[in-house]
Amino acid sequence: MTINFRKVALIGKYQRQASEEASEKSRLALEGIGQFLVGQGCEVLLEAETFANTGLSGHRVAEVDEIGAQADLALVVGGDGTMLGAGRQLARYHTPLVGINGGRLGFITDIALEDYQDALAPILHGDFEEDLRPMMQARVMRGNECVFEALALNDVVVNRGSTSGMVELRVEVGGVFVSNQRADGLIVASPTGSTAYSLSAGGPMLHPSLRGWVMVPIAPHTLSNRPIVLPDSVEIAIEVVGGRDVSANFDMQSLATLLHGDRILVTLAENSVRFLHPRGWSYFATLRKKLRWNEGGS
Amino acid sequence: MTINFRKVALIGKYQRQASEEASEKSRLALEGIGQFLVGQGCEVLLEAETFANTGLSGHRVAEVDEIGAQADLALVVGGDGTMLGAGRQLARYHTPLVGINGGRLGFITDIALEDYQDALAPILHGDFEEDLRPMMQARVMRGNECVFEALALNDVVVNRGSTSGMVELRVEVGGVFVSNQRADGLIVASPTGSTAYSLSAGGPMLHPSLRGWVMVPIAPHTLSNRPIVLPDSVEIAIEVVGGRDVSANFDMQSLATLLHGDRILVTLAENSVRFLHPRGWSYFATLRKKLRWNEGGS
Amino acid sequence: MTINFRKVALIGKYQRQASEEASEKSRLALEGIGQFLVGQGCEVLLEAETFANTGLSGHRVAEVDEIGAQADLALVVGGDGTMLGAGRQLARYHTPLVGINGGRLGFITDIALEDYQDALAPILHGDFEEDLRPMMQARVMRGNECVFEALALNDVVVNRGSTSGMVELRVEVGGVFVSNQRADGLIVASPTGSTAYSLSAGGPMLHPSLRGWVMVPIAPHTLSNRPIVLPDSVEIAIEVVGGRDVSANFDMQSLATLLHGDRILVTLAENSVRFLHPRGWSYFATLRKKLRWNEGGS
Amino acid sequence: MTINFRKVALIGKYQRQASEEASEKSRLALEGIGQFLVGQGCEVLLEAETFANTGLSGHRVAEVDEIGAQADLALVVGGDGTMLGAGRQLARYHTPLVGINGGRLGFITDIALEDYQDALAPILHGDFEEDLRPMMQARVMRGNECVFEALALNDVVVNRGSTSGMVELRVEVGGVFVSNQRADGLIVASPTGSTAYSLSAGGPMLHPSLRGWVMVPIAPHTLSNRPIVLPDSVEIAIEVVGGRDVSANFDMQSLATLLHGDRILVTLAENSVRFLHPRGWSYFATLRKKLRWNEGGS
Repeated sequence: MTINFRKVALIGKYQRQASEEASEKSRLALEGIGQFLVGQGCEVLLEAETFANTGLSGHRVAEVDEIGAQADLALVVGGDGTMLGAGRQLARYHTPLVGINGGRLGFITDIALEDYQDALAPILHGDFEEDLRPMMQARVMRGNECVFEALALNDVVVNRGSTSGMVELRVEVGGVFVSNQRADGLIVASPTGSTAYSLSAGGPMLHPSLRGWVMVPIAPHTLSNRPIVLPDSVEIAIEVVGGRDVSANFDMQSLATLLHGDRILVTLAENSVRFLHPRGWSYFATLRKKLRWNEGGS
Repeated sequence: MTINFRKVALIGKYQRQASEEASEKSRLALEGIGQFLVGQGCEVLLEAETFANTGLSGHRVAEVDEIGAQADLALVVGGDGTMLGAGRQLARYHTPLVGINGGRLGFITDIALEDYQDALAPILHGDFEEDLRPMMQARVMRGNECVFEALALNDVVVNRGSTSGMVELRVEVGGVFVSNQRADGLIVASPTGSTAYSLSAGGPMLHPSLRGWVMVPIAPHTLSNRPIVLPDSVEIAIEVVGGRDVSANFDMQSLATLLHGDRILVTLAENSVRFLHPRGWSYFATLRKKLRWNEGGS
Repeated sequence: MTINFRKVALIGKYQRQASEEASEKSRLALEGIGQFLVGQGCEVLLEAETFANTGLSGHRVAEVDEIGAQADLALVVGGDGTMLGAGRQLARYHTPLVGINGGRLGFITDIALEDYQDALAPILHGDFEEDLRPMMQARVMRGNECVFEALALNDVVVNRGSTSGMVELRVEVGGVFVSNQRADGLIVASPTGSTAYSLSAGGPMLHPSLRGWVMVPIAPHTLSNRPIVLPDSVEIAIEVVGGRDVSANFDMQSLATLLHGDRILVTLAENSVRFLHPRGWSYFATLRKKLRWNEGGS
Repeated sequence: MTINFRKVALIGKYQRQASEEASEKSRLALEGIGQFLVGQGCEVLLEAETFANTGLSGHRVAEVDEIGAQADLALVVGGDGTMLGAGRQLARYHTPLVGINGGRLGFITDIALEDYQDALAPILHGDFEEDLRPMMQARVMRGNECVFEALALNDVVVNRGSTSGMVELRVEVGGVFVSNQRADGLIVASPTGSTAYSLSAGGPMLHPSLRGWVMVPIAPHTLSNRPIVLPDSVEIAIEVVGGRDVSANFDMQSLATLLHGDRILVTLAENSVRFLHPRGWSYFATLRKKLRWNEGGS
């Protein structure tokens, strides 16, 4: 049986480890996965920062761009946050990603560390479910100048400073005025992000194959300012009209210095992120587990 | 200047009128609109039931199917409910509809009776915004037999009897198990229906051009059973698993005799409804007015 | 050490048992608890219906009113529903109740069947936490005549028929007009009922020692019709103004024949229900367990 | 007919006026009200800051404490924010307050500027409705030291910094552990504050005569972390366990430098605020107007 993905990148959790024990556990996990991949006939590319954090030897070390250019597959070992970061970086290379989680399973890292061999082997041989996730391209415009640019796989959030009152945001969709929102903030979430912050703020879940974003006001002054789901084909423009210490967040990347008149533009990014899951994976099974719906179901 | 729509159907409110005064007002409105259309060079087809209710003379009377086959445009004079009914009936003929409202403007009947001349003239001459609204095709399956079939432009609702406890519904999407919902009921709403009952039950608004439905549990037992937006390309199957006196509603058409094991199947209907609006119409302006967002906006 | 409660009533689940196995399990549980009580020096009064369902011999059989008049304590073996029923019946006798649950622990039946000996012994000897729960006295007035009267420990619910549209209810509090509510229905919940249906419909939790009720509209037409918490000292009057097949529910007791003009009056019942819990019981611990808040807490 | 309140304080909007025109309008309003009061036989005390802002002559100028010690009544001319501030300051003197609003009526400033003569005359002669509003006493404890203390008539809010993730708060009520909340923040609102920020964050309304506070999580990570209404007789303790740039707000007063381990303690303040309203005032009428419930009501 031939291998489907020959060059496989190994990417670990980016954050500095909380404890020596966790660090060691993480290193051992990566080591085991690396050996398993070699045993399966793969060539392993160890992501440079992961190497720096773990000192894991025996594999070729590669920067993310090198991984994008050369790897056939990227294995991410960590939580949803690590996966989001790797996904954003590798999207333009169309590199598929598989997520392995050493702790509680996430929405997008759905292979348990203890099961990785059984789960990975079929994937490596071409038996998997592909799951494309659209991303947002966000730009911050100050007059005609773009002062910040970022990709977001989860969400774009504009919010007030912590000791200030409400922010006031003027929203346009496809060039058409929607509303002036007075609220703690405003979230634009993708299907992937719809089960994260957006859900806490009262937004609906969006199925990954829905072609849309949801715009969710956070604690809006007007009670009828409810979440609205928009097609992902139109541009969303959010202008800062009022409020102090207004900031914007793109997944985890923050921009803390928004001025009145600044406009955040959100469009569909050119590339989607490609997640691979074990055959039989179901988005709804993930929801049932993560949201604890499983009483009475099958 | 040539007329764009030569044969125009005139459809009044279907319900028996509440009072003689309202009845007379409605008759006068239809009479005026009819004369205006003739003055614009149109041929008027008066819908048969509207004729029966008003006795309006001077126009050819036509059944709805005749209207569908022959009319270039249908003018609906009434509220959103009348418009929903006409839309469902005319969708398979692709007849465009324009809504004129004698009372408070609706979400889809957006021309005020007192403004109809100014609003209609440009539309009749081809200057308008087209607004396509997808419909749901719903079937109720008992075993392998289809015991009921209906189109729904707003929503499909499955709910419990009034003195019984919760209903239990087993939901599948695209053949994949989603969850067993224990709740007062479950709504599947289209973009058009997302501002009606679904909104009251906690659902988000869906932009009319979004290719999706929203599934909203009504007073769900499990607090994390939140609204979920699905692409309109997959089949939604709702099986009645538990509860007494379970009924289903398709826009306004009720089916009160659901049995355990019955399955309600929802798919995208073959035809969409075509609404025409005056040039400059904006979905968001309608939301601002209906949901009273207009403080501070422009 | 002297016993605090000498005459102890034993009350089992009221419903007919689902299966022979469950029936037998329930009988054995009651038998064991009865023997335990005798061993502790108590006299056992077996509730008459419980006797009819189980045929358990060896104890004096007593009707509920006899229990109320004579028993020092009532042990309820079942779920929250059984406890609600027993609580309503025994409130006017001030008989304290203890709930033992053979299945998943409830909000008010908080002793697990397998732990009953360790939990009951201290209670029988006077070491417990007392937890008073106010009840609602509900009357249905048709003109000046009271056509129905009931106590409710959980909630009073007025709702629409399953195939009809919204109900319209005119609400007054303390003789002052509040609003005309158009909705699926309206819930008035006590602190005890605030974690039941009311919570599903979007209501807040009310701490058991709060002197108030919460009024929660179900899927209200007006989005700003939000739950409102009222002091329990004022009368709530709900008049049926519109809607078909309107019914009222008082805990589990239904009245399906409400007419336009009927008024449901809710006042604080004269007597509260007395629950006893093991020393160290905490309402919040129950919430954490039932609502699964326990991640990260202690 | 004798006057009921002889010494009447006049308190204007505290903020610097936005425009010269608004300033002049405000000055004229105060001048007119002052003359009216003198005409009614009252002695007017002009609050010192109001004098500084307007230069209004002809009345004795008094500091707030002097007003508290001497005035029989305080007229506040401004919005709800001005009224909150004056209420907090005068509560310990039991001085009753009347609110006159020059713009859109507020929840607690319910006399329109153009109606003040008709509304005030009866109040001055003793014909009014009294409306007592409880306040919260909030303290911030760092170890055993109290580093901040404030009264709050609306709410106590603990929240995260704008570019940081969630805050983690450990909540105890009456010395009993409730939960570890991970959220954007947590609001404790009084009945008065329940129609302000708390309502935007999903909280219920609390009737002014309810003896309770509502605790509302802002965008909580756990979906079942719902608002909970607590009796105002117990102490609420909120400990900062996690999060960066955590701040607290007491009505409008901010404290931006909370540290991990800091505890915010909320208890019932010794004094309530006394609002007076024209005879026939109704809390529910205010809700209907502010929340636009008035369709179909009377």
